[in-house]
Amino acid sequence: MTEKVTRLAERLAVLLGPDAVITDPVRLRTYECDGLTNHRARPALVVLPDDGAQIAQIVRACVAAGVPYVARGSGTGLSGGALPRTDGVLIVTSRLRRILEIDIANQRAVVEPGVINLDVTRAVRPHGYYFAPDPSSQQICSVGGNVAENSGGAHCLKYGFTAHHVLSCEVVTPDGEVVELSADGPGYDLLGVFVGAEGTLGIATKVTVRLTRVPQTVQTLLAAFGSIEGGGTAVSAIIAAGVVPAAIEMMDALSIEAAEASVACGYPPGAGAVLIVELDGPQAEVEHQFAQVKALCEEAGAFEIRVAADDAARALIWKGRKSAFAAVGRISPAYLVQDGVIPRTSLPRVLARIDELSAESGVRVANVFHAGDGNLHPLVLFDDAEPGAAERAEGVSGAILDLCIEHGGSITGEHGVGVDKARYMPRMFTAADLDTMQMVRCGFDPAGLCNPGKIFPTPRLCGEVPGVRKGVHPLVEQGKADLF
Amino acid sequence: MTEKVTRLAERLAVLLGPDAVITDPVRLRTYECDGLTNHRARPALVVLPDDGAQIAQIVRACVAAGVPYVARGSGTGLSGGALPRTDGVLIVTSRLRRILEIDIANQRAVVEPGVINLDVTRAVRPHGYYFAPDPSSQQICSVGGNVAENSGGAHCLKYGFTAHHVLSCEVVTPDGEVVELSADGPGYDLLGVFVGAEGTLGIATKVTVRLTRVPQTVQTLLAAFGSIEGGGTAVSAIIAAGVVPAAIEMMDALSIEAAEASVACGYPPGAGAVLIVELDGPQAEVEHQFAQVKALCEEAGAFEIRVAADDAARALIWKGRKSAFAAVGRISPAYLVQDGVIPRTSLPRVLARIDELSAESGVRVANVFHAGDGNLHPLVLFDDAEPGAAERAEGVSGAILDLCIEHGGSITGEHGVGVDKARYMPRMFTAADLDTMQMVRCGFDPAGLCNPGKIFPTPRLCGEVPGVRKGVHPLVEQGKADLF
Repeated sequence: MTEKVTRLAERLAVLLGPDAVITDPVRLRTYECDGLTNHRARPALVVLPDDGAQIAQIVRACVAAGVPYVARGSGTGLSGGALPRTDGVLIVTSRLRRILEIDIANQRAVVEPGVINLDVTRAVRPHGYYFAPDPSSQQICSVGGNVAENSGGAHCLKYGFTAHHVLSCEVVTPDGEVVELSADGPGYDLLGVFVGAEGTLGIATKVTVRLTRVPQTVQTLLAAFGSIEGGGTAVSAIIAAGVVPAAIEMMDALSIEAAEASVACGYPPGAGAVLIVELDGPQAEVEHQFAQVKALCEEAGAFEIRVAADDAARALIWKGRKSAFAAVGRISPAYLVQDGVIPRTSLPRVLARIDELSAESGVRVANVFHAGDGNLHPLVLFDDAEPGAAERAEGVSGAILDLCIEHGGSITGEHGVGVDKARYMPRMFTAADLDTMQMVRCGFDPAGLCNPGKIFPTPRLCGEVPGVRKGVHPLVEQGKADLF
Repeated sequence: MTEKVTRLAERLAVLLGPDAVITDPVRLRTYECDGLTNHRARPALVVLPDDGAQIAQIVRACVAAGVPYVARGSGTGLSGGALPRTDGVLIVTSRLRRILEIDIANQRAVVEPGVINLDVTRAVRPHGYYFAPDPSSQQICSVGGNVAENSGGAHCLKYGFTAHHVLSCEVVTPDGEVVELSADGPGYDLLGVFVGAEGTLGIATKVTVRLTRVPQTVQTLLAAFGSIEGGGTAVSAIIAAGVVPAAIEMMDALSIEAAEASVACGYPPGAGAVLIVELDGPQAEVEHQFAQVKALCEEAGAFEIRVAADDAARALIWKGRKSAFAAVGRISPAYLVQDGVIPRTSLPRVLARIDELSAESGVRVANVFHAGDGNLHPLVLFDDAEPGAAERAEGVSGAILDLCIEHGGSITGEHGVGVDKARYMPRMFTAADLDTMQMVRCGFDPAGLCNPGKIFPTPRLCGEVPGVRKGVHPLVEQGKADLF
């Protein structure tokens, strides 16, 4: 620990109490990484504040000391957005777990950032409501992390991302001010840019979330196809018919094989792909549209369709899908989880090309995806004991992203950029696009201490950014650059 | 015209051709105001570019000359967001009217900013789609203006605002760079902050909009109540039942009187309030929920319920509502249109207090509102020939806004801040909140030339803004302020 950090640790222990500051290297090891386990960095210092006021104190102390800091919720992120800095402070929000207010009449709740996603639903379920964003990690991930990463989930096709379910946030800005950001109010929608900024524009200390009415009914079917193409055709037909299912998930043969080996979900044997379609809403609507979906799956060549008769049957259908990532660990010593997006209409072409990439390289790829919104999660399998295998897997994984971009898609659908994909950003954005983002970052965080090194491919001091635009800033041209 | 502007006019005539530059004072008068007619300013210069590339040229020329500029679509805005600067250039987008692409399979279209809102729907209606945002001015307002003001409309209760229907924008930034802003991509959601920034963060030159499937069926009813309270109770009951109507509109006795006098819409005589409820969606769902809505209106004390049997009957029901603003001109020589928001649950209390304000001041107030989302449009009536009447009306209008804020609401629901409400911003936001917005503005527009004087109560040079935070910027403290 440098002397600067030692002094900061002492100062924080005075402010927060000694049990809120961790400096013991063994205990620090817990915080070395988030869900992206191949990037690790032990923080110089971990702090466990009790409330938003303490977070503001911590941030101001870090800024005064010139020490970088990173906020972390439950650490389930998959892009390394909460990767600590070895020379910095990790601010862990796990003690901010209070649900501060439940306002059913206005369909909203106010929660602290450390509240677990599913606990919001548990608290409001008796009133007939739930919190819609449902990342697979919803039993352990925190609302603050959902806000930072703008988390999605299987049901975001119909219900949208976290951004669509956050009404306002109390935020500690990167220089320690406490501000209220709201989507509905007049002025700039700074909430829009804050949600999904991966913790680079400040730390949410209170989150007002929208509550969604529990639907009257839910119906789920599993359709088995001979090939991925058949499943893709069904997806296009369903969307084209104007039906918006709560979820449409697809798994290919390799991921089905993995799921069977792991949880014996009993999917139809011989399926080249299965499609899980879930509809929810008023009974009359769901029944009407469910019949349509069944017919469209049959027309697209489904050789077997199973309809869940009750909650137990529904859970069994979902079990295979939800276990897919972990299950792949049964059939491969190691794997990379990729996260790309393509227009729905490009599904068949892109999947065929992924098959080719796999065949050319000898690297197996299992495809699990949110088919309704074109969000692919290819699992790239490799044996980490085999020399060069990790590099080959990385190569295929990167080639899949290029493929997504080529088809007008994106390098991430819901996992974020973090440290993992910063290097891919220039493949999607021009220098001017990235500069415009940097300008906003520097507006919020001129000192560059708030979660630095994430999102942007070439971290720069804020002072360097306006320089890029120097020629067109009249005040700069007039020699008044110091006004900035 | 100052010499600076004269030289700029000459330069622009060379770049765009002489017919694209207006300097004739008589012709300039057309552009003195937008829909907020009590603020007027004749621009020094009007330019009519043909495409986005010309807009980028104009902006760069303005920045080089140090001349402010304002973009304007159809000029239907109600907060003066497109009010020109007498010392600046008005960039009119009316020649950018091309629909560049219609992509039905991916449910999107790419349009230029001058395209009329309703023309998007006209172009895609044959495919079974429409563009959902429907401000009352949709026959004449432009998509670029909708983007700038984040326009709503009667149906935004169910379908959301313009922000929910814009997928990406090509934007000329305030220093003349062309960037692509997207909501879906990785990195910051700059589209979120751009849409609704009232033209202060740049000019949209291409807009990719989401297309919405035309619903299978639409049903509309008119319910008449003895009092506003009865209508308010029905609104709460409908929302609490989990029904999301396409629209719920309410009119009070005075606005009904005005509408009758103007268009003879034949609303039930003796009504203290009427509620218009429209449901749309799949037939099975709509029929089911429509019966619920009827029953809830009856329970809330509706003394007459009319169901539109066909499109003609539906049009008649809407005729009264749509003519309400203009109709008020029949019963009052002048009026102010106010735009405030309150939580739905506060409707009865706020409306009762507006009644008291009206009685205390002797100023009549007609209430027309988007009841479903708590967006009030009180029309404050006065006689502009009577000395002091306009000031009294202004007083009541401002008091209504204070009332909205007091109840946890907002000073604008859909008309924007513009020049009209900048002075009210400090009633809603702390200095730190406003500074955070200013930082973003300065990130985009350090020279402060892009639609200056809008939104912010005390326009400041960007150089002054970081000064506010000086004490906490380490680089400033270290005497490295020039890095900013």
